[in-house]
Amino acid sequence: MDTSIPIRNPRNGKIDYTITPPTEQQLTDLCGHLRQHQKQWVLGGLQQRIEVLQTWKQAIKADQAELLEALITDTGRKSESILEIDSLISGIDRWCRLAPQLLAPEAERTTAIPFINLQHQSIAYPLVGVISPWNFPLLLSTIDTIPALMAGCAVIVKPSEIAPRFIQPLIKTISTVPLLRDVLAYIEGAAETGANLIQKVDLICFTGSVATGKKVAAAAAKQFIPAFLELGGKDAAIVLESANLEEATSAILWGSVVNNGQSCLSLERVYVAESIFESFVEQLTAKAQRLKLAYPTFEDGQIGPIISASQAEIMATHLEDARYKGAKIHCGGEVELLEGGFWCLPTVLSEVNHSMKIMSEETFGPIMPVMAFSSVEEGIRLANDSIYGLSAAVFAASTEEALAVAADLEAGAISINDAGLTAFIHEGEKNSFKFSGLGGSRMGAAALQRFRRKKALLVKTQSMADPWWFK
Amino acid sequence: MDTSIPIRNPRNGKIDYTITPPTEQQLTDLCGHLRQHQKQWVLGGLQQRIEVLQTWKQAIKADQAELLEALITDTGRKSESILEIDSLISGIDRWCRLAPQLLAPEAERTTAIPFINLQHQSIAYPLVGVISPWNFPLLLSTIDTIPALMAGCAVIVKPSEIAPRFIQPLIKTISTVPLLRDVLAYIEGAAETGANLIQKVDLICFTGSVATGKKVAAAAAKQFIPAFLELGGKDAAIVLESANLEEATSAILWGSVVNNGQSCLSLERVYVAESIFESFVEQLTAKAQRLKLAYPTFEDGQIGPIISASQAEIMATHLEDARYKGAKIHCGGEVELLEGGFWCLPTVLSEVNHSMKIMSEETFGPIMPVMAFSSVEEGIRLANDSIYGLSAAVFAASTEEALAVAADLEAGAISINDAGLTAFIHEGEKNSFKFSGLGGSRMGAAALQRFRRKKALLVKTQSMADPWWFK
Repeated sequence: MDTSIPIRNPRNGKIDYTITPPTEQQLTDLCGHLRQHQKQWVLGGLQQRIEVLQTWKQAIKADQAELLEALITDTGRKSESILEIDSLISGIDRWCRLAPQLLAPEAERTTAIPFINLQHQSIAYPLVGVISPWNFPLLLSTIDTIPALMAGCAVIVKPSEIAPRFIQPLIKTISTVPLLRDVLAYIEGAAETGANLIQKVDLICFTGSVATGKKVAAAAAKQFIPAFLELGGKDAAIVLESANLEEATSAILWGSVVNNGQSCLSLERVYVAESIFESFVEQLTAKAQRLKLAYPTFEDGQIGPIISASQAEIMATHLEDARYKGAKIHCGGEVELLEGGFWCLPTVLSEVNHSMKIMSEETFGPIMPVMAFSSVEEGIRLANDSIYGLSAAVFAASTEEALAVAADLEAGAISINDAGLTAFIHEGEKNSFKFSGLGGSRMGAAALQRFRRKKALLVKTQSMADPWWFK
Repeated sequence: MDTSIPIRNPRNGKIDYTITPPTEQQLTDLCGHLRQHQKQWVLGGLQQRIEVLQTWKQAIKADQAELLEALITDTGRKSESILEIDSLISGIDRWCRLAPQLLAPEAERTTAIPFINLQHQSIAYPLVGVISPWNFPLLLSTIDTIPALMAGCAVIVKPSEIAPRFIQPLIKTISTVPLLRDVLAYIEGAAETGANLIQKVDLICFTGSVATGKKVAAAAAKQFIPAFLELGGKDAAIVLESANLEEATSAILWGSVVNNGQSCLSLERVYVAESIFESFVEQLTAKAQRLKLAYPTFEDGQIGPIISASQAEIMATHLEDARYKGAKIHCGGEVELLEGGFWCLPTVLSEVNHSMKIMSEETFGPIMPVMAFSSVEEGIRLANDSIYGLSAAVFAASTEEALAVAADLEAGAISINDAGLTAFIHEGEKNSFKFSGLGGSRMGAAALQRFRRKKALLVKTQSMADPWWFK
């Protein structure tokens, strides 16, 4: 029986690749192999794990061209693909630098009872599963994987079936690294393979949609394992009257259209103080219109194709719904089919409201619906009127003014006078609000620590004739 | 329609009390009320919360006699009931002392990008639900509640329907404390009320059986809220050849029979080095035989009644199964029905193996099955051969020898040369292994911090003509 899955090319819509999921038995055997070798991975110690990851980094660098080509075909874009490889390399270095301190043994200490001391031991979960999405296929398949490996876990990764061409070149780099190849595996497959994977691991990391995230949470609960979910967003920007318009429009444009809006931390809603609303829309539109499609060649512009065909349909539906309900389109506004690929120019909308899908559901496109507010309170209320709570941005003349607004926003990470800063700053531990996620943070020290369990060792330090609790 | 639930008295089996669950509408209204007042609870600040909890402490002290009487009837035991009230009072004091440091705002700091600073804000989950068990009805209904209140949450608690008489006296103390009475509610009810409660809160803490814990995890996943589960155990003690027998037998006896074994951290399996096995069993049996039932009066002995009738049935089944499969009973060994109450004397068993329920399922009674091991590795393997991983104990001549064994045990907390130390030491953050629990620790700083979400505030600190990421 042929179980291979056909894969569409985002630039021309052609089926030009296939992937083959492991059989149930292959998956079971693979997980057994990883678990078995995880014991040695821990015993070898942190310094060895650092050396192995550094060797892997060199292997990735050596095979960079092939990996890059696959990523470019997967996503139909070039500069972001280069960025993905750079981020993986710097991510390996960052964790190699941070891990020794984060994994340093805690000193024994005294407790409230004088003759009882406390020590802590922390233990890696043996096998971590990672299910990753198509929007940054390489980066998001490794963002949890690297700290999990550093923590001492074995890891099995199932990237999205929408952009899977990078998997084989990456496996090639892994296969050249002794020790690593026995504790890190990538597998191909779609939803069914992901569901099977959850049954076989000790902890699951999932990045993707809310709908699938809820299924993962339910499966993990049934399996009684921790689930760390990084899901969708409908990130709001709030622009206060005092904001520097020039900076705000540039940052919001970038935050909305970078990677074609196909990023969980894309800005998807913009709320602007009434008094500056018109100039804001005018300036944002003028800047948006300078951007072009990267079509037919990469060099023709900045805006790549829409990677997922079903996401293109969602974008078209949101735009149609907004138009039907009275939104005004200042630029862009169409999902175009060009030679089999889906494309959309940066789109600025006004006269929008929360009855529109474009203001309430995740669009994942280069689309900026802008809405005026008459008071700061109204702006905050509108931003919080969402089932999502991933991130947000606030613009104001002073940091203090912006922070006062940020304090009331229900979102895990908030950029002040800039957009999408979580893409660059990894130190900021954050938790998602509402349906944007669940479980420990992938940022800050928690990103590594969530892969280890804490054991408390309570040591009676003196011998006594009669037990001390018989008093 | 009468929805009241009849309650059995553990000392005489009589139905002498009833509880009345809230209607669906009453529960909805109550949760709405708590949520509404939680905002003020946060705005009032930590110092106010500390003062309010101190006022509550005074109210509890003032009404101690009534509360104690109810608890004694609930559990059929006296000294543990006094201990429960003392522990609540000292718990309030401990959290009032610890909270200011744990909730101190973090200083702004620089990041990897020089002109971007990082601040953190932490936000209390608005409404925390607590579902608590019957074995320490007061203590375990407050152990998560106090840190949640200190963290700024409102809390709604549903204690077990097996031991609910303390609820009304406790509500009386809460009702005398302004502010507290609007953010802390106790409700009566059984499984259905618990299931409804999960639908209405932002975070759920559950202490109880693995079977119910799995249902809570599934319901929380569906509701997409964090669940902190503290479930059962089958805690093992390992006694190495070098151990001080006098101390080990005393500690293991206490760790197994305290509160009649009705404690999640009770020792339920004992593994002893072959060479000292016989003397160990002899000494343990001699000490166990000195203990008597607290029947007919509290003053007659140390061992109270079995609180839950269905648990008494489980104990009897485990003993019957062990006997049938060849276990040798050195003392105790019977669940007795005396005037409608269930009782069991401290029981020492040998010739046991892992095919017996008494070695594999949670018994929750004063029962000590003892098994010999021929090597330390075998002792560790036997201790880890369990679906549970809550806590454990290791006894050896030197701390180092014991710690080496503890390092390999799959359990969240391990007492060295003593038993059940987590009952006294609250500083030791720990995570359960396997089916003994899931989610953040109720010990250490995490006990409070898990009730708050972290927001990362990423602040661009300088204005610039061109956006910095356009390079």
